[in-house]
Amino acid sequence: MDRESKLVERIGRAFRSGSQYARDAALRLGIGDDAAIISCGRQRDWVLSCDAFLEGVHFLAKTHPPNSVGYKSLVRATSDLAAMGATPRYFLLTIAIPANRTGAWLDEFLNGMARAARSLRIVLAGGDTTKGGVVSISITVVGEIARGRAVTRSGARPGDIIYVSGALGRAQLGLELLLHGKIKASGLRGGRVRRSDRTLQSLLRPHLYPKIHLALGTWLARRRMASAMLDISDGLSTDLARLCAASGAGAQIIPDLVPRVAVPADLSKLAAGLKLDPLKMALHGGEDYELLFTVSPRNVKNLWAAPGFSQLKAIGEVTRGKRVVLVDKDGTKPQLEPGGWDPFRG
Amino acid sequence: MDRESKLVERIGRAFRSGSQYARDAALRLGIGDDAAIISCGRQRDWVLSCDAFLEGVHFLAKTHPPNSVGYKSLVRATSDLAAMGATPRYFLLTIAIPANRTGAWLDEFLNGMARAARSLRIVLAGGDTTKGGVVSISITVVGEIARGRAVTRSGARPGDIIYVSGALGRAQLGLELLLHGKIKASGLRGGRVRRSDRTLQSLLRPHLYPKIHLALGTWLARRRMASAMLDISDGLSTDLARLCAASGAGAQIIPDLVPRVAVPADLSKLAAGLKLDPLKMALHGGEDYELLFTVSPRNVKNLWAAPGFSQLKAIGEVTRGKRVVLVDKDGTKPQLEPGGWDPFRG
Repeated sequence: MDRESKLVERIGRAFRSGSQYARDAALRLGIGDDAAIISCGRQRDWVLSCDAFLEGVHFLAKTHPPNSVGYKSLVRATSDLAAMGATPRYFLLTIAIPANRTGAWLDEFLNGMARAARSLRIVLAGGDTTKGGVVSISITVVGEIARGRAVTRSGARPGDIIYVSGALGRAQLGLELLLHGKIKASGLRGGRVRRSDRTLQSLLRPHLYPKIHLALGTWLARRRMASAMLDISDGLSTDLARLCAASGAGAQIIPDLVPRVAVPADLSKLAAGLKLDPLKMALHGGEDYELLFTVSPRNVKNLWAAPGFSQLKAIGEVTRGKRVVLVDKDGTKPQLEPGGWDPFRG
Repeated sequence: MDRESKLVERIGRAFRSGSQYARDAALRLGIGDDAAIISCGRQRDWVLSCDAFLEGVHFLAKTHPPNSVGYKSLVRATSDLAAMGATPRYFLLTIAIPANRTGAWLDEFLNGMARAARSLRIVLAGGDTTKGGVVSISITVVGEIARGRAVTRSGARPGDIIYVSGALGRAQLGLELLLHGKIKASGLRGGRVRRSDRTLQSLLRPHLYPKIHLALGTWLARRRMASAMLDISDGLSTDLARLCAASGAGAQIIPDLVPRVAVPADLSKLAAGLKLDPLKMALHGGEDYELLFTVSPRNVKNLWAAPGFSQLKAIGEVTRGKRVVLVDKDGTKPQLEPGGWDPFRG
């Protein structure tokens, strides 16, 4: 188990012990999944999730434009609602900010976040503001869904087919180009890079302005097509391990089936210099926010009508036991260790 | 208007412009009050609020015991629900923490928070964990209330009587003793101080382990006794100005009526040395979490049945116009400038 998951378990234990009120009828799902579920009347559930986005941890003041910080912080929080199949409704923004960033920086940040809010159709409902040594953002999102239809991490059964909603590793490629490729987010002037600025911008976009899959998530939930689902925020290897642990199952993945980022030919030298391996980026790169979901074999034939169906890729299946393995061409099955983003790894 | 309120206005504007979906029928109250209100069916409203609690801004690692940090961070967030008259139900905890504090520090922090959760009868429903350079905590609380009964800041009318729920300045006295009085939160060994440890501990408690007024808040809301209400988190002068601004009214306060902390006789020399003036602490000291509320004259006679009635003090009245003034004994009416905690004051 990754260290962050262990920490979440520990927090859960601290609040469970000896408290009767913790068995709350209206709380349909507590900590440990992408979001909490609270019932609201007989027809609807509210889905709530929090996400922290911190300068120095999740973004860098000198590297990341404030517009992207505002956009991405709201989009990645809302991705947890997509992962439950819920429709976003409201968000609360808590921001700590140094006094010298409350001018132009904050305006650009708010511009980016307002654009994300419009495209996600999510409404600012409240929050908190204070000063801080660095910018730290915490966003709470509230979504709704028909009662009992939210898709959790824990419903995968042996034999279910494992899908991802699109190519993985694209956000990591963007981050690496930004950090090590002598490319800047604006202007895009780089010594070693000759491709047009426009193409480069498109390679940075998955990292700076990620897309999430709300329509697919709600479609899968409404039709009860997915037995388990989460969004790949920390990397396939880490998030698949979480889905399997929650479901009490294992998985086998065919590496050749994992859709990965295509490194453009004239960047391949740069990619090699940066030791960027597309398969490794696809297995362990985080922040793609693609949906990872499992489908019972009897439902696979109905998937064709899903939004974005042409991008969906089956990459393996759920197995008995608890091992998560790759199935190599020679038939060997090496373990797929969680190698994605884990803030508490030493 | 204080700088934090201006910032909140700016954030609100960034999200309002040109977006039709922002007029949302279910969102009964958006940003700018203590909490957001979202309707849930025909009988109930949900009340949501966020609160940030940051090392170096709201607490100091070397001064504040982790147990108090955990306890207080949840209590102060929940105080915003008391200020609406709502009953706490759930909270989400977002915590960023340095790797070297995930051991004993975190355990003590969680102990303190779990104790607060039991006494507030509020259930941990989710959250987010990540690493950070310092500890930053953001808590989202969810409460419920009968539809339309939440008490906002904006309902005060000229002639309404202004009440506070208890003595003000107690938290500031505790903080000053902790920072400058050579007293430690545990052990309490201080060179210049001779009072028994037990008495000193009781003086520190309002700062380290504040009490909030949930029963009073729900009582006032259920009986529609309060026309406006908030909790005094940043200081009476600052929070009263916010209530008046939201209500489009002014206020006059009789300084002699403002209940204040009694500095024990054998600490008065220390208090004088620290330049601690009980009235100034009562007017501008923050973090007391006493409720500040207004009552129509026709309802005053019914207040006797309120929980904690003996502690309630009438301190003045709501006036026409926008001025917030003190009424001195000689009849002069100096303006009461917001002098409480404002994170963005230079």
